[in-house]
Amino acid sequence: MHSPLEAIVLSDLPLSRRAARLAPPAHPNDASKLSLDSGYAFPGVFPDLTAAATRTLNEHRAESLQYGTPFGLTEMREWIAAYMRTDGVDVSHDDVLVVNGAKNGIELMCRLLVDEGDAVVVTGPTYFSAIPIFRSFGVSFVEIPQDDEGLDVATLERHLNGLSKDAAPKFIYDVPDFHNPTGITMTRRRREALVALAASRRIPIVEDSPYRALRFAGEPEPSLKSLDPQNVFAVGTFSKLLAPGLRIGWISGPRAMLARLARLKSDGGTCPLTQRIAVEFLGGGFQPLLDRARNAYKEHRDVMAAALRREIPDATFKVPMGGYYIWAKFPESVDTTELVERAWDQGVSLIAGPAFYATGTSAERDAPNRFIRLAFSRRTPNEIEEGVRLLAAAYRSIS
Amino acid sequence: MHSPLEAIVLSDLPLSRRAARLAPPAHPNDASKLSLDSGYAFPGVFPDLTAAATRTLNEHRAESLQYGTPFGLTEMREWIAAYMRTDGVDVSHDDVLVVNGAKNGIELMCRLLVDEGDAVVVTGPTYFSAIPIFRSFGVSFVEIPQDDEGLDVATLERHLNGLSKDAAPKFIYDVPDFHNPTGITMTRRRREALVALAASRRIPIVEDSPYRALRFAGEPEPSLKSLDPQNVFAVGTFSKLLAPGLRIGWISGPRAMLARLARLKSDGGTCPLTQRIAVEFLGGGFQPLLDRARNAYKEHRDVMAAALRREIPDATFKVPMGGYYIWAKFPESVDTTELVERAWDQGVSLIAGPAFYATGTSAERDAPNRFIRLAFSRRTPNEIEEGVRLLAAAYRSIS
Repeated sequence: MHSPLEAIVLSDLPLSRRAARLAPPAHPNDASKLSLDSGYAFPGVFPDLTAAATRTLNEHRAESLQYGTPFGLTEMREWIAAYMRTDGVDVSHDDVLVVNGAKNGIELMCRLLVDEGDAVVVTGPTYFSAIPIFRSFGVSFVEIPQDDEGLDVATLERHLNGLSKDAAPKFIYDVPDFHNPTGITMTRRRREALVALAASRRIPIVEDSPYRALRFAGEPEPSLKSLDPQNVFAVGTFSKLLAPGLRIGWISGPRAMLARLARLKSDGGTCPLTQRIAVEFLGGGFQPLLDRARNAYKEHRDVMAAALRREIPDATFKVPMGGYYIWAKFPESVDTTELVERAWDQGVSLIAGPAFYATGTSAERDAPNRFIRLAFSRRTPNEIEEGVRLLAAAYRSIS
Repeated sequence: MHSPLEAIVLSDLPLSRRAARLAPPAHPNDASKLSLDSGYAFPGVFPDLTAAATRTLNEHRAESLQYGTPFGLTEMREWIAAYMRTDGVDVSHDDVLVVNGAKNGIELMCRLLVDEGDAVVVTGPTYFSAIPIFRSFGVSFVEIPQDDEGLDVATLERHLNGLSKDAAPKFIYDVPDFHNPTGITMTRRRREALVALAASRRIPIVEDSPYRALRFAGEPEPSLKSLDPQNVFAVGTFSKLLAPGLRIGWISGPRAMLARLARLKSDGGTCPLTQRIAVEFLGGGFQPLLDRARNAYKEHRDVMAAALRREIPDATFKVPMGGYYIWAKFPESVDTTELVERAWDQGVSLIAGPAFYATGTSAERDAPNRFIRLAFSRRTPNEIEEGVRLLAAAYRSIS
């Protein structure tokens, strides 16, 4: 069936505008590379879910192998609501919609609020997997820079002041805790300024905070959701709390909007099997797993930071207080897109700065191609050191 | 946080056109009702997946709890390809994309091919859960009637002849085996006519065939995919083969299109945990489970058909040779929308004909509100008999 005819037929099939907007990824996955690129979890902290799965498949077989409800298992929603309450947000399970991971949550927020041509606010740089989701909806990006306190609210306000009401962005997307890719945590006063501005302009905020619980030191800032429960949709995920393979995330927002979001799901209900496994496991206590993850990622961060300082003293970065990433800045003489290609040839995979910018036209002081995001999450300390050594060799070869 | 302010804020939030097109479902789920409405699986045929899950979570922990790839596990795709080969379609795993169930597959086909205002061909009646997915994309429905041989290809051809090339439908959607809701299986000559027409007009077909393996008697007709592998996207699911709770389905289509579809997924990879559990289980043999399911659903069908003949002799229907549903026609004097409401009051949930029509303007001989779809899949034989008795009581009360 793979005759030359196939190519002819396919090149004729007219794609939707949405599909035509998305280019295929540049690099194929290559398991032989030492990956410091993706925000994968460290397998060493994966929990033992066998007992939870066995209970699920015996005691909850009729539920866990059947279709689920669009909103998710009640006990899952109750756990999420309780977790959010410990973080200062007064919610019940009725305020929580279970979704297939945070990316699915971001996609659903677009389905709810965005038509082609609508504006969405993102930071420059921003979460690079969110960019193609937004782009597929044909959004017009409003890219706002960050400083050490997080999203530059004054710049956003000036931008909004210049717009007619019809042109107002449909939402403001941000990762306020251990921002992806920069690692910046927004300060409290900046958070307060952001929610005040958004509320005054009636622009909802989509708060994507997968790394919030992975704080290595210090006290958390209040979540945007806790500062303005009415106007903030909180997107959460178990990918960093428990395991990405479960594909469970959530959205907490106004109930009438959750009902709309549930209607916009087209998944036959988020997997009831993995939800019940999570509920069964979490019922046995969550803190030991979280402590183990924090300790592991803190060690990984320390190893990566020390290796970067030792191997590539020209690179500068702020040590993040949590999360998965170091956002390293290279001297002006270096194009990190080229550096990442050389590093790939050396055997380590990384992502250069430009991938994290929704538009190429950001008014950043520093050009995107001076940065590389290094993920310390997935690999062991020895692998991280080796990866940084390989990057350093690539750096020396071009500088 | 649930102050009166919430309603004000929410009513102000402007929805996307997509969201505004979808009304909330009419009836809430009500577990106290004897459900003959949904195409849920019979829990009595759910397999014991505990051993497969334990092996998965021990031997494949690093894989099954990590992010998956957009295409799905290679072994899962190989199993699906082998399964399709036994059904006359010459494919390898490279021709298969794993998705989150068939509905997710239908949604992805829309993402790939459909822009707002584009036409899509459906049967009248059609799979009622596909209708809101299509509608959310703002499609213009071309609703083609069926006869006992399936979709009326001559009517479709006449419709296409009247169109300019730009107005050609983006795809033809059909459930050719044990059609949902009518139970009709398209004849071979009708299938040949459909694929020939579609190929000549270069309109791809989306073949959604969840019930194909649940044949109670007779020989299968060739799948549309086997008749024209180039121009047919086959959408499959494990919901009827193994268990809906796994949320695993697939699309088989041209490879360049699968790569596009993979890029349009926004799920961080279909759940690797449930895929590996499925692979582990299926490696131990699949036929006993399938035999058990066929036997159970055949018994359910026989019980429902006998109960309908006994309790409501005025209702007429064709006995389906497989699948989950009986599509019963009531006398002209009865409005089945009203009958279903009365039956709900009696304690049984059913879905009246109009829900299965994408437009209200079908040129069917019989009005949609003369039909009810009865699902014999989910409930036990005793419950099916009780449900039909309750429907009969409702029928007597209004006729």
